Amino acid sequence: MSHSFPADSVGLVTPQSLEVHEPLTLACERVLDAYTLMYETYGQLNADKSNAILICHALSGHHHAAGYHRADDKKAGWWDSCIGPDKAIDTNKFFVVALNNLGGCHGSTGPSSFNPATGRMYGADFPLVTVKDWVQVQVRLSDFLGIGQWAAVIGGSLGGMQVLQWSVDYPERLRSAVIIASAPKLSAQNIAFNEVARQSILSDPDFHGGHYYEMDTYPKRGLILARMVGHITYLSDDAMKQKFGRDLKSGKFLYGYDVEFQVESYLRHQGEVFSKNFDANTYLLMTKALDYFDPAREYNDNLQHALSRATCKFLVISFTTDWRFSPERSQEIVNALIAQGKDVAYADIDAPQGHDSFLFPIPRYVNLLKSFLSNIAHETQGAKHAS
Amino acid sequence: MSHSFPADSVGLVTPQSLEVHEPLTLACERVLDAYTLMYETYGQLNADKSNAILICHALSGHHHAAGYHRADDKKAGWWDSCIGPDKAIDTNKFFVVALNNLGGCHGSTGPSSFNPATGRMYGADFPLVTVKDWVQVQVRLSDFLGIGQWAAVIGGSLGGMQVLQWSVDYPERLRSAVIIASAPKLSAQNIAFNEVARQSILSDPDFHGGHYYEMDTYPKRGLILARMVGHITYLSDDAMKQKFGRDLKSGKFLYGYDVEFQVESYLRHQGEVFSKNFDANTYLLMTKALDYFDPAREYNDNLQHALSRATCKFLVISFTTDWRFSPERSQEIVNALIAQGKDVAYADIDAPQGHDSFLFPIPRYVNLLKSFLSNIAHETQGAKHAS
Repeated sequence: MSHSFPADSVGLVTPQSLEVHEPLTLACERVLDAYTLMYETYGQLNADKSNAILICHALSGHHHAAGYHRADDKKAGWWDSCIGPDKAIDTNKFFVVALNNLGGCHGSTGPSSFNPATGRMYGADFPLVTVKDWVQVQVRLSDFLGIGQWAAVIGGSLGGMQVLQWSVDYPERLRSAVIIASAPKLSAQNIAFNEVARQSILSDPDFHGGHYYEMDTYPKRGLILARMVGHITYLSDDAMKQKFGRDLKSGKFLYGYDVEFQVESYLRHQGEVFSKNFDANTYLLMTKALDYFDPAREYNDNLQHALSRATCKFLVISFTTDWRFSPERSQEIVNALIAQGKDVAYADIDAPQGHDSFLFPIPRYVNLLKSFLSNIAHETQGAKHAS
Repeated sequence: MSHSFPADSVGLVTPQSLEVHEPLTLACERVLDAYTLMYETYGQLNADKSNAILICHALSGHHHAAGYHRADDKKAGWWDSCIGPDKAIDTNKFFVVALNNLGGCHGSTGPSSFNPATGRMYGADFPLVTVKDWVQVQVRLSDFLGIGQWAAVIGGSLGGMQVLQWSVDYPERLRSAVIIASAPKLSAQNIAFNEVARQSILSDPDFHGGHYYEMDTYPKRGLILARMVGHITYLSDDAMKQKFGRDLKSGKFLYGYDVEFQVESYLRHQGEVFSKNFDANTYLLMTKALDYFDPAREYNDNLQHALSRATCKFLVISFTTDWRFSPERSQEIVNALIAQGKDVAYADIDAPQGHDSFLFPIPRYVNLLKSFLSNIAHETQGAKHAS
């Protein structure tokens, strides 16, 4: 049935899982004795294992980044626009690995997983994890796959933060870092929006202190609100204007609280769909990972000092209308890298889609990414020929 | 005890109420047979009643704009920084009137008032009102006070929208209009934030379809969330950065959902206080009045056409860091006025406080307002001498 997939698709993919039994000490000082990681791979790992690319996902992402799980799947993986044969992240050249992070709700161990220590779902007992923890976990996956050094580690938004942390914590284990629509740490306003999302969930009577699974319910109202407020920050004012303006659903004012404006209908729908497909405890945990992220913190709040450890090439990309992580936030990273004499390319891409731009196949952006990675691929081959 | 008030305060003030028994047909086509308006006045009305200024309030405002209700009041009215003897809105020169709009929760008839038709509180039975309705009501108050023409009608944010509507609907009844930190209509993003606030309240199990009064409860959680999300849009990213940055309440990460960052503590506190002092149905109604506001709608969506009716002088003020109603939104009003050859002064004030700037005594802003109104006062006196 693969004939039904587009020619530039990786086609049918099968998620894999890795059971890790080596204890993991987290930033919060708690220890996870064992955990499962879900991941997918696309393309072929070459003989010297030098062509591997790791994809780090953002808040609501997971391991299914490209291709299809079933022949009749309508929807491809979340970054299918960039991953595939001849695409920006070219699976003819690279072996691409995407995983669901620890704490997720798509198969990797998280709050909605069974906790062998208590005999019930983790729920609120699942420890809060950080970007640094995730990188540790990703290193274990790298070791399992036998990948000593990634050709590139790539991520957008919260994914870009993982890439930045990789470059600081494991400089020798990546040759290039691609950080898209990200920031070196959250601003007070970013934290404030996360806090509204959290309070929406935490104050929902169906949250039951995080142990809602066993009550056969979930904080649906809270999750809808959290997603609605998040969604506003993902779109630009302009994008919303172009998409909805002040269009009315029924063409006239109703003078009531049913949907009047199209933008209300859209937001409610987005919230509703999301609330059926995502776990509230994971949402809480992801927002906290965002809040905690601050690689400079261990280096006297000096980002330059932190990045002085990095040895890879960097590509940093921002989008003009992104106000969640504005171009200035990317430029903080770029400026620190330049000040440290690192190899960094930076582009601010003119795009109307706001923060979500990183998920769209915007030609300048996709071409830039393709070109950067193509050079990395040639270096990979060069290194192979030289060896 | 007035000696305890600052010298530039209007001192002790007593709210007054007006019972209106003339039926009012609202934009939604429903009719209110009678209603109460709460208002306050500061300063003295002159003999020819030419020195009156009307203050229109924003979302959470009311009639208590200046002075103190009791000798031991710690807090003055909401715009005390601008209203008083020798202040920008100088009560030595002007007779200042502030009211609580219809639908409010500070004494004017609104959802939390007794509905004589049903024998219970209005609750969800209170009609949704518009900025245009409010201006109609304000005209009735003007008539009652014998004020044929206001020297100025002044308002910030939603208050500024009422001023704009006055200039279009009753051009002969105001000599000047001061529109601060406002917009000619909401953007899709503005509506989206309002929708999140509404859904927070509407989905709160304690909302009870708007008839929570008789259940002896109220949608506290929803109101807290609504205020939190609103509050983020009132402050600039910069203001939040300066005020809170990433400061931690206890100095270290707690890895839990208790308050960690100062900004979380602030937002929760603001939400908590607000939820005890404001009515959820009024909050809903105010956000809808904002959404509906669009004076150009009756004029083929042509703002210039709407404003062609205006005859007063205009002062339009915006603030550089206001992202709720950015300077560009004020400039839409200014540009339409200029295109129509109207008498308009405009200033974009450099201020870090975001949308809330209009409530702060920022020298350039206050001086500009004072100077503009001083000219109006001279004209008032001139007109008096000439007559």
